Amino acid sequence: MQQLSSYVGGQWVKGSQGGQTLVNPATEEPLASASSEGIDLAAALEYARTKGGPALRALSFAERGAILKGMADALQAARDELLALGMRNCGNTRSDAKFDVDGAIATLLAYAELGTQLGAGKFIVDGDGLQLGRSPRSHGQHVSVPRHGVAVHINAFNFPAWGLAEKAAAALLAGVPVLSKPATATAMLAQRAMQVFVENKLLPEGALSLLVGAPRDLAQHLGAQDVLAFTGSGDTGEHLRALPNVMRHSVRVNVEADSLNAAVLGPDAGASGDMLELFLKEVVRDITQKAGQKCTAIRRLLVPAEHVATLRDDLAGLLAGYKVGNPADEDVRMGPLTNAAQLADVREGIGRLGAQGTLVTGGAQPLFPKGYFLAPTVFEFAPGAQADAVHAREVFGPVVSILPYADDAAAIVARGGGSLVCSLYSEDAAWLEDTVAGIAPHHGRVYIGHPKIELSPGPGTVLPQLVHGGPGRAGGGEELGGRRALGFYLQRVALQGSRPLIQGLAKAGTQV
Amino acid sequence: MQQLSSYVGGQWVKGSQGGQTLVNPATEEPLASASSEGIDLAAALEYARTKGGPALRALSFAERGAILKGMADALQAARDELLALGMRNCGNTRSDAKFDVDGAIATLLAYAELGTQLGAGKFIVDGDGLQLGRSPRSHGQHVSVPRHGVAVHINAFNFPAWGLAEKAAAALLAGVPVLSKPATATAMLAQRAMQVFVENKLLPEGALSLLVGAPRDLAQHLGAQDVLAFTGSGDTGEHLRALPNVMRHSVRVNVEADSLNAAVLGPDAGASGDMLELFLKEVVRDITQKAGQKCTAIRRLLVPAEHVATLRDDLAGLLAGYKVGNPADEDVRMGPLTNAAQLADVREGIGRLGAQGTLVTGGAQPLFPKGYFLAPTVFEFAPGAQADAVHAREVFGPVVSILPYADDAAAIVARGGGSLVCSLYSEDAAWLEDTVAGIAPHHGRVYIGHPKIELSPGPGTVLPQLVHGGPGRAGGGEELGGRRALGFYLQRVALQGSRPLIQGLAKAGTQV
Repeated sequence: MQQLSSYVGGQWVKGSQGGQTLVNPATEEPLASASSEGIDLAAALEYARTKGGPALRALSFAERGAILKGMADALQAARDELLALGMRNCGNTRSDAKFDVDGAIATLLAYAELGTQLGAGKFIVDGDGLQLGRSPRSHGQHVSVPRHGVAVHINAFNFPAWGLAEKAAAALLAGVPVLSKPATATAMLAQRAMQVFVENKLLPEGALSLLVGAPRDLAQHLGAQDVLAFTGSGDTGEHLRALPNVMRHSVRVNVEADSLNAAVLGPDAGASGDMLELFLKEVVRDITQKAGQKCTAIRRLLVPAEHVATLRDDLAGLLAGYKVGNPADEDVRMGPLTNAAQLADVREGIGRLGAQGTLVTGGAQPLFPKGYFLAPTVFEFAPGAQADAVHAREVFGPVVSILPYADDAAAIVARGGGSLVCSLYSEDAAWLEDTVAGIAPHHGRVYIGHPKIELSPGPGTVLPQLVHGGPGRAGGGEELGGRRALGFYLQRVALQGSRPLIQGLAKAGTQV
Repeated sequence: MQQLSSYVGGQWVKGSQGGQTLVNPATEEPLASASSEGIDLAAALEYARTKGGPALRALSFAERGAILKGMADALQAARDELLALGMRNCGNTRSDAKFDVDGAIATLLAYAELGTQLGAGKFIVDGDGLQLGRSPRSHGQHVSVPRHGVAVHINAFNFPAWGLAEKAAAALLAGVPVLSKPATATAMLAQRAMQVFVENKLLPEGALSLLVGAPRDLAQHLGAQDVLAFTGSGDTGEHLRALPNVMRHSVRVNVEADSLNAAVLGPDAGASGDMLELFLKEVVRDITQKAGQKCTAIRRLLVPAEHVATLRDDLAGLLAGYKVGNPADEDVRMGPLTNAAQLADVREGIGRLGAQGTLVTGGAQPLFPKGYFLAPTVFEFAPGAQADAVHAREVFGPVVSILPYADDAAAIVARGGGSLVCSLYSEDAAWLEDTVAGIAPHHGRVYIGHPKIELSPGPGTVLPQLVHGGPGRAGGGEELGGRRALGFYLQRVALQGSRPLIQGLAKAGTQV
């Protein structure tokens, strides 16, 4: 059985024996093992800070962007191999695997292009210079410069390629070295991507490291110049934020955690028509793509009370006969959950929903003797039902709940306590204005579906141009959003003093 | 004896008897008492959220700015009375009191002017709209909208007027209601400022509340839409960030905490001349203004090793005969520390510095039988001395340490672990470029002193146009900086979908 390696301190190293076993979640066949035991994590971080940091800071944005372009090209060249790994290790259908790998490539390319736009500067000149007080000599200028630390990225199991690439793209373009820690369950794909980068000699020494296996005390070695970006459960996010060194040194932490994304069918969308079709199509995609294991997947369907019965029947019809099984079988449209722990967690969530709502289709029962499979599952809640279970806990699998609403859609959506995305399906401008005003502060993104937009990506696709994150339960973080992504890795500093001196200092930056 | 009142739920209320006694720190005479016992803090916050929030969100930036202008004018009209309170309750000289009160007025005016510039919009349209993918119908637009919560501001004892005003200005302009909690020891001035606002009926109901006395469990009532801005000790900042509700709901927290601000005399500044004079003038001001009780005050003097002896003698000469005493006496140039606890804390800090360095002037001994007085105090450290005490703990009083450097100025400065401001005194462009590159990521502001700038405010003055905050030990926060200040109170949201619909929604905002 393959033992995965970490790339730290400029070399591939294996942890001591033992560690976690990675499996094919469709067959439960063991594929590899991963251990980080025995690896000197403090040394790995210090190598990144002292080798990778200065090397990246010496490059311009355009040069850093060229590195990202090389990474995208290298992934593209290895795409078939990476897709196969996604299908074996992640339970992905080929389409699911493309979503992950092509998302990684597209995000790297978007930040490569941003690097080209930012050009020859090495840091950001933030806004115009200001005269301070009455003397024209007295000048102020904000600049945003790369932090002198390392960015630790702890990624979720559901996007081993995209998670690695999207976080690394922003940090590297900003000029900050990265140590990336993929979720162990699906680390084969992340490790192979890293091998591709290393084999192609794309990055300066120390600019990108990869740690497979348990994170151990990784985050406890972070200091005032370091940053930590985490995607995963809210509980782990809280644990990381509460670490004494993180508190004491104000380590910047970005958390992307649980999210109860809602989709609201507008009052004008009716019981049939293009808008309803779009709604159903995007809901079915979000239930089934990656077996519902997307942080942005729709979990709550808000439907005008008078249309609930129709909608429920339509949805059940679309999901009936939806083929679930081993992604190695080409007919299969939805694969298994990622591992036994996820399956158990989703089953428990289905139990909670079932205690308050009515099961429409699917359920917690096993589908096959082997593998972590579940059927697409829909619950319905009566008007005015308490429905605490729907709003209190993300069920990270192929599960949605239908909630009727009257004139209280925004208030129901807000019960999620902060989410990554909410999607609205309406062309009623007044209703949209009211609803967006009510829900916008609770979200990082509001998606307004429109049937005339061809090839709509739906609310579940995270785009490099738009911010990704959400307040409250969703972690309070923000990633991506084009140039906005760089801010997390930069320290904004006000330069104050003599105008010619400060204008001279700002020359090495790019004005934005 | 006066009992101070809180303004919550739209009325003045007194806490139950008891509470803390406020004194004149020059005489130890009791002046007032303050208690928050018995006040329903959850109700006070909910009143702000439900009354103040909608009222502020209904106003444009220009209208919110007009409120700030009214607040500035009202403080100006009450200025003499406020200065007298600063002199009695805060141990301020008249000049110190002006620094606080005039700072409050200037900051309110600066944000009033920003409101005028932002005009008729009610939220920010953040950047240009983007075409997403191939269809021109598919559009993305970031907007930043007021959070639907309350901003809790916990302020430090040293700036009862400025601290209240600068935090409130940014929140109110953003459209978020405020509950402000001044430090109890100096709350008389904050309470009087609040009375002035209320008497002049300047704000919508619920837009601004004031809580005097202990904060009790105030921060434990905050949720996902609320924000908490704290200025004070690093320990309290850590306590607030670690509260379970703050963690669970990702309550946004801005901390401005301890800071070991350095001033570096450049290698070209020599042992005499204009630059040295400026350096000495600004150092003496920072030691003595408000008895050194400024978060931005210079604590560490980095001096070329060959000039240390001259500098030390010059500084001792300037501080010799510096008149310390009751600010009621017009000859007095430096008043007492704020209270007995601060005096004890600074004495303990002087003890730690004295264990590693050499006392040049001043010291921990009492100056008078009554009052919390200390002499301006200077320590000197030998080249290569360990000097941990200098870099590890802020001594919040009239105390500085002289540290010699050779070619390691930036590395010595960085030992502070993150500070609010560092000041450099040099005209050597190459040295400045190197040094700024080394120190910038460790600071929120870099001040470059120049003798030809008339009426230089020095590094210790926080300007509304420039960001204020710092990484690491300084809390990792950011306040002020003109429009940048609003971001903390706004939720950035990506709107995604049909172009005409989204352009319609964005019309109510101000494009920046």
